[in-house]
Amino acid sequence: MMNIPTSSQPRVVIIGGGFGGLSLAKKLKNKNFQVVLLDKHNYHTFQPLLYQVATGGLESGSIAYPIRKVVQKLDEIYFRLAEVERIDTVNKKVIADIGTIFYDYVVIATGSKTNFFGNEEIKNNSMAMKTIPQSLNIRSLVLENFESALLTNDINEQKALMNFVIVGAGPTGVELAGALAEMKKHVLPKDYPDLDFRKMTINVIQGAGKVLDAMSDKSSKAAEKFLDKLGVNVWLNEIVVGYDGKTVKTKSGKEFQAETVIWTAGVMGAPVEGFDATVIQRGNRIKVNEFNQVEGFTDVFAIGDVATMMTEKTPMGHPMMAQPAIQQGDLLAKNLERLKEKKPLKPFVYNDKGSMATIGRNKAVVDLPKFHFNGFFAWFVWMFVHLMSLIGFRNKLVVFWNWLYNYLMFDRQARLIVRPYKKKNSESFDNNLAK
Amino acid sequence: MMNIPTSSQPRVVIIGGGFGGLSLAKKLKNKNFQVVLLDKHNYHTFQPLLYQVATGGLESGSIAYPIRKVVQKLDEIYFRLAEVERIDTVNKKVIADIGTIFYDYVVIATGSKTNFFGNEEIKNNSMAMKTIPQSLNIRSLVLENFESALLTNDINEQKALMNFVIVGAGPTGVELAGALAEMKKHVLPKDYPDLDFRKMTINVIQGAGKVLDAMSDKSSKAAEKFLDKLGVNVWLNEIVVGYDGKTVKTKSGKEFQAETVIWTAGVMGAPVEGFDATVIQRGNRIKVNEFNQVEGFTDVFAIGDVATMMTEKTPMGHPMMAQPAIQQGDLLAKNLERLKEKKPLKPFVYNDKGSMATIGRNKAVVDLPKFHFNGFFAWFVWMFVHLMSLIGFRNKLVVFWNWLYNYLMFDRQARLIVRPYKKKNSESFDNNLAK
Repeated sequence: MMNIPTSSQPRVVIIGGGFGGLSLAKKLKNKNFQVVLLDKHNYHTFQPLLYQVATGGLESGSIAYPIRKVVQKLDEIYFRLAEVERIDTVNKKVIADIGTIFYDYVVIATGSKTNFFGNEEIKNNSMAMKTIPQSLNIRSLVLENFESALLTNDINEQKALMNFVIVGAGPTGVELAGALAEMKKHVLPKDYPDLDFRKMTINVIQGAGKVLDAMSDKSSKAAEKFLDKLGVNVWLNEIVVGYDGKTVKTKSGKEFQAETVIWTAGVMGAPVEGFDATVIQRGNRIKVNEFNQVEGFTDVFAIGDVATMMTEKTPMGHPMMAQPAIQQGDLLAKNLERLKEKKPLKPFVYNDKGSMATIGRNKAVVDLPKFHFNGFFAWFVWMFVHLMSLIGFRNKLVVFWNWLYNYLMFDRQARLIVRPYKKKNSESFDNNLAK
Repeated sequence: MMNIPTSSQPRVVIIGGGFGGLSLAKKLKNKNFQVVLLDKHNYHTFQPLLYQVATGGLESGSIAYPIRKVVQKLDEIYFRLAEVERIDTVNKKVIADIGTIFYDYVVIATGSKTNFFGNEEIKNNSMAMKTIPQSLNIRSLVLENFESALLTNDINEQKALMNFVIVGAGPTGVELAGALAEMKKHVLPKDYPDLDFRKMTINVIQGAGKVLDAMSDKSSKAAEKFLDKLGVNVWLNEIVVGYDGKTVKTKSGKEFQAETVIWTAGVMGAPVEGFDATVIQRGNRIKVNEFNQVEGFTDVFAIGDVATMMTEKTPMGHPMMAQPAIQQGDLLAKNLERLKEKKPLKPFVYNDKGSMATIGRNKAVVDLPKFHFNGFFAWFVWMFVHLMSLIGFRNKLVVFWNWLYNYLMFDRQARLIVRPYKKKNSESFDNNLAK
């Protein structure tokens, strides 16, 4: 039972406390709605920095923010920790694990998840990096592999333990490869003086003909050069078709022996149940009109990664990034008010602020709408923008100090195996679960 | 296979990277030993601040320090992530999950674990707080209980969800109770405005006739007054005899309905296998002589919590705290050198620097050997000593900023359920484990 009081004001149920859901919730302040926010976690995740949690640069709490702390400042808002099972659009209710709630308006802001394109073998054997627990798993696995590499005299086994294959060279794959390369240069050889770090290899496998293929050619070329400088092997035009836990295989017949494969090659929408297949479009995203209304409804909305708004300018929908989600959330707050007042709705126009990626120390690429640059200044801009985008003063401060420390000391101190990943059945793992 | 090279220098195997093991390893620098350090975690845990991780005041990474970072600065030291199964003192070898290693000297520094005094029911239903994963479990459970309290209209169930029973009023129990009381005052009512916080109760149940019974009467009285001011119910001379997951029962017949019971009522040594029962003394600790040699051996040592050195001055052994462990580790480094040089060993003399506990904002008690004080200045001393005792500049800095932020903002931002505790079988939990 959700225990939400009845209200004289119309009720907006928002599913998901990511960039889109939170921006909408904040903007609904003093707009005379009762807002119910549901999320399966009690925190907001700042996804752009997950790769730093995975590589020991940041603690997980630094990029997570309690959702209840966000909603404290708002009025007539109710947060519930809940997993939504489905939406019943006929009876206008949301069915979750903790009960059922009726809505006047419902907003699906459930984001995206890793897309393995139906390959179960790859899904079962490779690592995804879309959530904090997943990033902590990668951190544990990377460190555990170095511990294991110390224990073997079989050179092939050692090489496989020290070979990191990243599938996909979008911003996530490129940033992760850069961070691993920095660890190889500055941290790991000091931690494991007995290992020969010429055996450590970082392979990025990209299906397209260039890295960062959503960015400008200039930035793409620069990123490739940065990766090369850091000793990362980039494989272009190679499609990964299998990984059995030991060997990565590509369509063209290449093979990589690796104990760690991180899959950043695709994301897809993570919609809730309750819609016809016709509403679910390419990339598992929900088809919405220019007001973010789900096709066929006036009271059901989808925003952010989970929504695809196919206009003339964006035939494939908007990019699955924070900015479209935030901007759609902002506009939807206004449109919900207009809907209540029976005024005509305003169509969404995406304000493309550009995109960026960092590849390591002093290295980043930035695409502004009319200007592309890279190098030290781009890296500085990347840091500033990410720091300012973090929610909360404490998180900004803690991340700032960690970055300053890491930069000056060439260090990454969160290299902690707090929750072992490999030793799932060992006593220490059971201890983690129970006591 | 451990892959430790043979050496012309005698090999010291240290089991455990706690306060004792690390202080010994550091002091063996340039002493012409080959040192092998084994621990089941790749990090050192600063146990005195675990209660702050449990109550959302600090992230876990702030009180953990990578052991490899400590040993980087040392020469001829080998760290291995390993769980020791037993010691074979006849053949002078240590048998671990990753293989076997021969020693010239072996030092058991495996610390202590929670003592449930053989009560399986309490062990299965209550929470312990000796490790980082355990503290994170408590954090998750506390927050999950408030989320659940929102969902019920059964007043008794709600009260049980908001009732926190801490068994044991040593420093850990008292500090945890104080932190929970501060959360009740400053954080939780803002997060859960729909809950009536008069229903939230914190009960500390103590077997002895006073709280902090290892400290002075003055400090004990002051601590009790502080707890009372914070609204914590203290029950003295009450022995908890059972907890079935719903009801705490005491010997005198009292009952407490509580969904959360944290057991801080006892610790016991956590020795390794391989010794006769006669060597294992009261509190499961290994009997050592004044040189920390295990009874009957000249080449097997135990230090810290796991060791009990029964002298005239300390008939029950030294207190199970950081200081005796650190001091014994320091002395043992010197004694190992003397042993190698066939010089007579120096006996251990404990330098009691005093003890302290904090009960909440601006409140602490300090016992110096000849002087006892409490209140604001004591609280300041407590903070300073704990900050300075943390290993590493980054950890000091991050904890300092968090404390300053928490103090000024009356906040505790690490109130994150990163790994759900209750919903063990839900999808989100499985996701945490796998991907």
